[in-house]
Amino acid sequence: MIYKELEKRAQLISEAIERFLPVVHPEGLYEASRHLVDAGGKRLRPSMLLIAAEAAGGNPKDMAPAAVSIELIHNFTLIHDDIMDNADIRRGRPSVHKLWGLSGAILAGDTLYSKAFQILGTTTARPELILAAMDVLSRTCTAICEGQWLDLDFEQRERVTEAEYMEMVEKKTGVLYGASARMGAVLSGASAEAAQGLDDFGRLTGMGFQIQDDVLDLTASEKVLGKKRGGDLAEGKKTLIMIHALANGVKVDVFGRKDATPEEIEKALIVLEKSGSIEYARSRAVELVERGKQALDVLPDTPARAILLELADYMISRGY
Amino acid sequence: MIYKELEKRAQLISEAIERFLPVVHPEGLYEASRHLVDAGGKRLRPSMLLIAAEAAGGNPKDMAPAAVSIELIHNFTLIHDDIMDNADIRRGRPSVHKLWGLSGAILAGDTLYSKAFQILGTTTARPELILAAMDVLSRTCTAICEGQWLDLDFEQRERVTEAEYMEMVEKKTGVLYGASARMGAVLSGASAEAAQGLDDFGRLTGMGFQIQDDVLDLTASEKVLGKKRGGDLAEGKKTLIMIHALANGVKVDVFGRKDATPEEIEKALIVLEKSGSIEYARSRAVELVERGKQALDVLPDTPARAILLELADYMISRGY
Repeated sequence: MIYKELEKRAQLISEAIERFLPVVHPEGLYEASRHLVDAGGKRLRPSMLLIAAEAAGGNPKDMAPAAVSIELIHNFTLIHDDIMDNADIRRGRPSVHKLWGLSGAILAGDTLYSKAFQILGTTTARPELILAAMDVLSRTCTAICEGQWLDLDFEQRERVTEAEYMEMVEKKTGVLYGASARMGAVLSGASAEAAQGLDDFGRLTGMGFQIQDDVLDLTASEKVLGKKRGGDLAEGKKTLIMIHALANGVKVDVFGRKDATPEEIEKALIVLEKSGSIEYARSRAVELVERGKQALDVLPDTPARAILLELADYMISRGY
Repeated sequence: MIYKELEKRAQLISEAIERFLPVVHPEGLYEASRHLVDAGGKRLRPSMLLIAAEAAGGNPKDMAPAAVSIELIHNFTLIHDDIMDNADIRRGRPSVHKLWGLSGAILAGDTLYSKAFQILGTTTARPELILAAMDVLSRTCTAICEGQWLDLDFEQRERVTEAEYMEMVEKKTGVLYGASARMGAVLSGASAEAAQGLDDFGRLTGMGFQIQDDVLDLTASEKVLGKKRGGDLAEGKKTLIMIHALANGVKVDVFGRKDATPEEIEKALIVLEKSGSIEYARSRAVELVERGKQALDVLPDTPARAILLELADYMISRGY
């Protein structure tokens, strides 16, 4: 059932993107800006915004600009992150900087950034509500920059604490889900309590989603991942799994060794299962999602609230 | 007198930046974001905003957030442009990407971008006025991206028309001056006519300023320029001067020849003086500034309006 609910909204969002972000002069810039956006993805964040608005008593029909703005901000971060990570592939397509070069990709991201605010401004709601939503969006963008900065900083460091990791995940992934849900609430004129509950829901489930992603990198089949298992391990990424392992003196020989063989990765996987590091991360992800769901207790029991609860489970249960 | 007027406002703006953009955790990100901002510059754009607000009957005391937001957007574009142009020096300092690397510079720019919207949102004015100012700012950022895209595109092309060049200059430089003046008016609750007049003033004088910059690159002394004369020529930049020369069949041998000697540059300069190409660009700059000044006819004759008229002349008369 959640699939159908998401599918329905994803289509609505794609249509709205077509409307709000047409390819106009200079065409190259808008084609570069639309490249990743058009490659799809599940539109989880804007869908969360639409469902949150419904759960807060709003009319999702009025939320198309806000939903598009969230999706554009998400794509802007992907384009700039891919430059920083030197990532060649995204959503099965060449990344924007591979096709349009460094300058083209910086500009495509910057364009999505400003378009997001421009489009959000076309929402039909009381000015003070739109202004409150803009405040959420701009604060969130700042936090995402901070999160990405921390992530890059961690690569240079020997040790990262769990608290530091959690701050990074909250800022890099959590806050945009939190903003999605909160903006849906704010633009619906919801109470501060309902808006906070939805923000917590989005932020916590978003964090759980990201940690589960790290777990899947180690445990999912290569077919599901679409890439080699244990890539994070070989790259020396300081995931919650590795932070747990390092803190407990678990030796993982392949950590940070890009030439690790599949056999060595499998061995490391067994070591990390035995040490409880994988289970630790998995349980933290589940715990975050549970806390997120509890945050919805402040909302009345509606069909939209039920969909949000299902969405939360979906976010950490998906194969990938 | 204009120097004193600008000096006074520049100081006010620098103090406001300190207040609105403190260096907080993660410090490295905020130090990178502040690097260029703190290097100064004349703060022409935010000063124009403050004076425009006064000329529109507003209280410049309420405009500090808007002025800071304009200055941050300007610096964001400089940081990202320097990456694209591979420029090592800016305002006499190493550029941000030289000190913090590509990723650091992308993130520093992105942070200034979101901070600009966040800070603008703290203005004390009616919500609909703040929303109108945000609309101006986001549209302007989109236009700046388009302008930079066109500029990069021109580098790849054999010929550029004057109309294309004017569009590029309008978007890359004009609109941010236009937005500065318009935002001052909008946030002061000015009439649509006054806001449009101030927008035209900023946009046209900003374009004149940029064209004059191209003229100075050829005609100012190296001492004033702080770099070799005729750099644009050797790099093959399609300035209005070269567009005029190419359209009139004037042969400029050193165009696009990075190994051109100072003697060859001097020779080209004489050719371009003789062909009237330099004079053509100079007169277009003067004409744009004159049109900009005329756009202020809709405003009452106040001291602030007089300062704007002086500012316009200053923008194309400065040594550099």
